Amino acid sequence: MKNVKCARCVVCGKEYEPAPDITLCSCGGVLDIIYDYEYIASQVSRATLAANRDFTMWRYRSFLPIREDSPAPPLRVGWSPIYPAPRLAEIIGVKYLFIKDDGQNPTSSLKDRASAVAVVKAREAGADTVACASTGNAASSLAGNAAAAGLSSVIFVSSRAPAGKVAQLLIFGAKVFSVEGSYEDAFRLSAQAIEKYGWYNRNAAINPYLMEGKKTVSMEIAEQLAWEVPDYVAVSVGDGCTIAGVWKGFKDLYAAGLISRLPRLISVQAAGCCPINRAARTGAPLEPMEENTIADSIAVGVPRNPVKAINAIRESGGVTVEVTDVEILEAMVLLGKTCGVFAEPAGAAGTAGLMRAVREGLIPKDARVVSIVTGNGLKDTASGMKAAGQPDRIEPDISRLDKHF
Amino acid sequence: MKNVKCARCVVCGKEYEPAPDITLCSCGGVLDIIYDYEYIASQVSRATLAANRDFTMWRYRSFLPIREDSPAPPLRVGWSPIYPAPRLAEIIGVKYLFIKDDGQNPTSSLKDRASAVAVVKAREAGADTVACASTGNAASSLAGNAAAAGLSSVIFVSSRAPAGKVAQLLIFGAKVFSVEGSYEDAFRLSAQAIEKYGWYNRNAAINPYLMEGKKTVSMEIAEQLAWEVPDYVAVSVGDGCTIAGVWKGFKDLYAAGLISRLPRLISVQAAGCCPINRAARTGAPLEPMEENTIADSIAVGVPRNPVKAINAIRESGGVTVEVTDVEILEAMVLLGKTCGVFAEPAGAAGTAGLMRAVREGLIPKDARVVSIVTGNGLKDTASGMKAAGQPDRIEPDISRLDKHF
Repeated sequence: MKNVKCARCVVCGKEYEPAPDITLCSCGGVLDIIYDYEYIASQVSRATLAANRDFTMWRYRSFLPIREDSPAPPLRVGWSPIYPAPRLAEIIGVKYLFIKDDGQNPTSSLKDRASAVAVVKAREAGADTVACASTGNAASSLAGNAAAAGLSSVIFVSSRAPAGKVAQLLIFGAKVFSVEGSYEDAFRLSAQAIEKYGWYNRNAAINPYLMEGKKTVSMEIAEQLAWEVPDYVAVSVGDGCTIAGVWKGFKDLYAAGLISRLPRLISVQAAGCCPINRAARTGAPLEPMEENTIADSIAVGVPRNPVKAINAIRESGGVTVEVTDVEILEAMVLLGKTCGVFAEPAGAAGTAGLMRAVREGLIPKDARVVSIVTGNGLKDTASGMKAAGQPDRIEPDISRLDKHF
Repeated sequence: MKNVKCARCVVCGKEYEPAPDITLCSCGGVLDIIYDYEYIASQVSRATLAANRDFTMWRYRSFLPIREDSPAPPLRVGWSPIYPAPRLAEIIGVKYLFIKDDGQNPTSSLKDRASAVAVVKAREAGADTVACASTGNAASSLAGNAAAAGLSSVIFVSSRAPAGKVAQLLIFGAKVFSVEGSYEDAFRLSAQAIEKYGWYNRNAAINPYLMEGKKTVSMEIAEQLAWEVPDYVAVSVGDGCTIAGVWKGFKDLYAAGLISRLPRLISVQAAGCCPINRAARTGAPLEPMEENTIADSIAVGVPRNPVKAINAIRESGGVTVEVTDVEILEAMVLLGKTCGVFAEPAGAAGTAGLMRAVREGLIPKDARVVSIVTGNGLKDTASGMKAAGQPDRIEPDISRLDKHF
């Protein structure tokens, strides 16, 4: 990998060779992939991208920690649509708003970006089985991307994962264990099992390569907006890996000279589970919380990647916001009604947080904002119904309609 | 519309001006849009397409019955991925197989192609409300595309529509009536209501423009396969509009000189509801059937567009196949396991039909086949679970895992 210098611990700074199966530092810290931006800048530019007809995340391959001879995996991940949202902007009270709909990915969440990288790195490591613990989306994306690439997957999922995500796992042929307990229980069991059985580890907070896949969402945002970097990017936060990836995407573009400024992040957590935001605000060590929210994808009481996430929020001069389940459901309805975008609860949480940030005066009204929808509402139709109500049941008789119109 | 000559009745041949709100012929026949292929050929070629960076269905605008000044609607519809499926091909026993995953559309079904056209035509007609009856996908796609374009939608949906599709409708802010009865009951009620309240009619079997949107799936197949037309295209059939659209897409490309041969169609219906296939085989007038299948999207006992569908099957020298619900569930599992594609039952029916066609020797083993997945399995997770089973529930204790590995 000519573009990668090393992997470096975010806690103690110790450096490692970037082998495909590195996990944590010996001190327990999370590793970060360090790039040679001079080399990257010699390989990629706005012009090379403009001429590139690969409309997937792999158009940013120059920025990815992948061996030059590794083939891209089969599923079409990335280059999700970004929609101008003038009606929603008006309702929220912000000048320019764009919705980046990452529910439009093969398994319908942003996590496909990480799992696509996991599949490539697993192959580089010579593994034939990949495993992870997940609140749901990381798992279903791993199962789908692994299946398409001919790899086996073993998934440890919290018993609270909604039906849609579990159905995906099973259809993709994963070996699925529904762990009775919290995400933390599922995570610990997966770590023990991966150690014991020697599978490739796709836990994003341990495997430093996965965040690198997630960062492509920011590269797309910048390119799709004709390299006019937004003022703010709102994203929901659970384990911390996604917001860290979002930040790294912009930083990488900046370091390689493709953009000339950086956005500020709006870190949105559920009021019922917001340990990262709390620690980011207070500077105190992270304290675990219970997982009380409808937004299962971000219900992470013991986040495994707080360091990178908190660094991202701070470095960007970011804003932290917590939202209630009611606010999340409201945002789901608004995204659907005004944009034709169906978000799962965690997927709409970013938008809910943006609404609150505007209401509380945390960001200026003339800001140019991108809100990332991280997952598709079809994964959790029960919450969709909860947000939007039930249909009117009628008999097939035209006279029954009059009272409705 | 310089590319359109007229709308012509497929039954009596009477011709009409292509106004945006035309529906059926005075004789009751369905209209077909007739193009000026000489003009189209002067506007589009393989070379112009190769240079076109609009990776949506609108890259085929030269073939669409849209006013030159009509803007494309907001959602990113079309250019869904096509995947080579060598492992599935081997299992099925066919030489070359490609899966066209049209579940990768904004509202997760092929119907987005028709609804995108409906939204444009509704605007051209000056309407602010669009309405339809639907087994589910036409409705959710209409609701989503209408919401994104700032139009209202009124939906009549059969009470058998699965939760995912109903949740989509509600989130997209449609006025939804769940009609107690069959698709036919919902259809008749919608027709009466559209007449009474003056909404724009998005019933695909009545509005001749919608099939024109669906045809873009075939144009993509041809272009994505580098203009090497497959020998067979397998697709599931309900109302008949989709297979008619698939056929028209290839015929249009042929007429405009972009391809030099045509594929044969594999028309797949559920054994429990196959009136079109039966009529296509026997030549006898279509007889209504009950709607006994898990594949709700193609459970259409009284298809409203049999003429175009049967013409398409016959003209292409096509094959008709019926599949059981068990075969459909098997195909769902195979698509998931070998391709990482999660199809709803009707979406997997095309592949199930292909399997049966090969098994029965209806198509040669060295054929080059495309199977269209028409909708995403997340729309009907109950069927997904039915197909793939349940996860293993375990306590978070590593010793419990040993018996599984």
